[in-house]
Amino acid sequence: MAKRPEALLFDVFGTVVDWRGSVIRELRRVGRRHGVRGDWGAFADAWRSGYRPAMAGVRRGDSAWRSIDELHLDILKPLLERAGLHLRPAEIRELNAAWHRLEPWPDSAAGLARLKRHFVIGTLSNGNVSLLIDLARGGRLPWDVIFSAELFRHYKPDPEVYIGAAALLGLPARAVMLVAAHKDDLAAARRCGLRTAFVRRPLEHGLASEADTSADLRADFNAEDFVDLARQLEGQAR
Amino acid sequence: MAKRPEALLFDVFGTVVDWRGSVIRELRRVGRRHGVRGDWGAFADAWRSGYRPAMAGVRRGDSAWRSIDELHLDILKPLLERAGLHLRPAEIRELNAAWHRLEPWPDSAAGLARLKRHFVIGTLSNGNVSLLIDLARGGRLPWDVIFSAELFRHYKPDPEVYIGAAALLGLPARAVMLVAAHKDDLAAARRCGLRTAFVRRPLEHGLASEADTSADLRADFNAEDFVDLARQLEGQAR
Repeated sequence: MAKRPEALLFDVFGTVVDWRGSVIRELRRVGRRHGVRGDWGAFADAWRSGYRPAMAGVRRGDSAWRSIDELHLDILKPLLERAGLHLRPAEIRELNAAWHRLEPWPDSAAGLARLKRHFVIGTLSNGNVSLLIDLARGGRLPWDVIFSAELFRHYKPDPEVYIGAAALLGLPARAVMLVAAHKDDLAAARRCGLRTAFVRRPLEHGLASEADTSADLRADFNAEDFVDLARQLEGQAR
Repeated sequence: MAKRPEALLFDVFGTVVDWRGSVIRELRRVGRRHGVRGDWGAFADAWRSGYRPAMAGVRRGDSAWRSIDELHLDILKPLLERAGLHLRPAEIRELNAAWHRLEPWPDSAAGLARLKRHFVIGTLSNGNVSLLIDLARGGRLPWDVIFSAELFRHYKPDPEVYIGAAALLGLPARAVMLVAAHKDDLAAARRCGLRTAFVRRPLEHGLASEADTSADLRADFNAEDFVDLARQLEGQAR
């Protein structure tokens, strides 16, 4: 069947790892150490949502290339101020590295190991390379390759990222499938000719969120998690 | 101790995989299929040695970027001609892909798995990304990350490769160690501030070769193989 790809590339934040739960746990720990109470869920959301405008500045060319580590640090500092958390520079750096310690969703490692039997698997993330290496080592994620926006000096959803990754794989775009929990990422990949798989991650934004986790009708696959995706792909003829 | 690095990057052809033995096996198979006898060792050596001048052309800027796959194919065609091996285009492509199927030295996979417990491990090879992915999958090499000259559009020993890899790791050069069986590669890495480890691979060029496998007195470590290197590094305090 024409539907089966040769390589699967994965969005990471929210798709492979639970950034929100992990960041909240680290914030709570720091808050407790400093005797500060805060709405750490709102703090985590603000930290994460600051990253789109920061990235947009890089994408428009307002600033030279800046890594996600650097963008996260820029966003963190005023948030700490507002929360009344006065940390030493070393503590701030340590907290910023929370993004290197995000925990995978429960199905991620097992699902990836199963998918790896049939396909080349890699990241395709806006996270910088060293961050993605740390997530893989911490979460035992068995990637064949780490692709990052950093390699292309373009952030998703710029087409350079999707096209650049397919070129490095030595594959036509149609032989590569992006797996993501975000429809805008998948739409950009489709515009570059990649196949797409939507994975529902209803807890990415917390229990109370109203994020759109309905099926993506334009995707080649819709899956509940990575194990479900493996099952569906194994059911396809080559 | 200041001597212990955080990440180990490995040269691949000759250091991790036995390119010569693997290529000879594939050539012999093709020759037998076509009823052609040849000196496949000499053929493999010529194929490999053509790659330095071809790369030098790219390094000098004589041609646009060309991957090792493309360079290997350019070199292969006249060699086939000379050997009297008349292959169809698909057979030539298949033979050229022999470089994607090179077998690791007997200690490589186990040694890397052991080193990975303590260090980030990655490739730093002139091979293109897709080739390195195929070698890793075929040889069960548990890399944390695949770094290739292709990412930097510079071939080793250009400094951009060594410096670029350390930057992507988010590490100062002194925290990164190149592991290689070739002293010129190590010397170039040292000029960029990296640590170095020389691994003897006396069979790289065959039993009869006179390659220099004496200790590299300027390297931080000299090892018999990757397991020996792991043992030596584990003996170092952090």
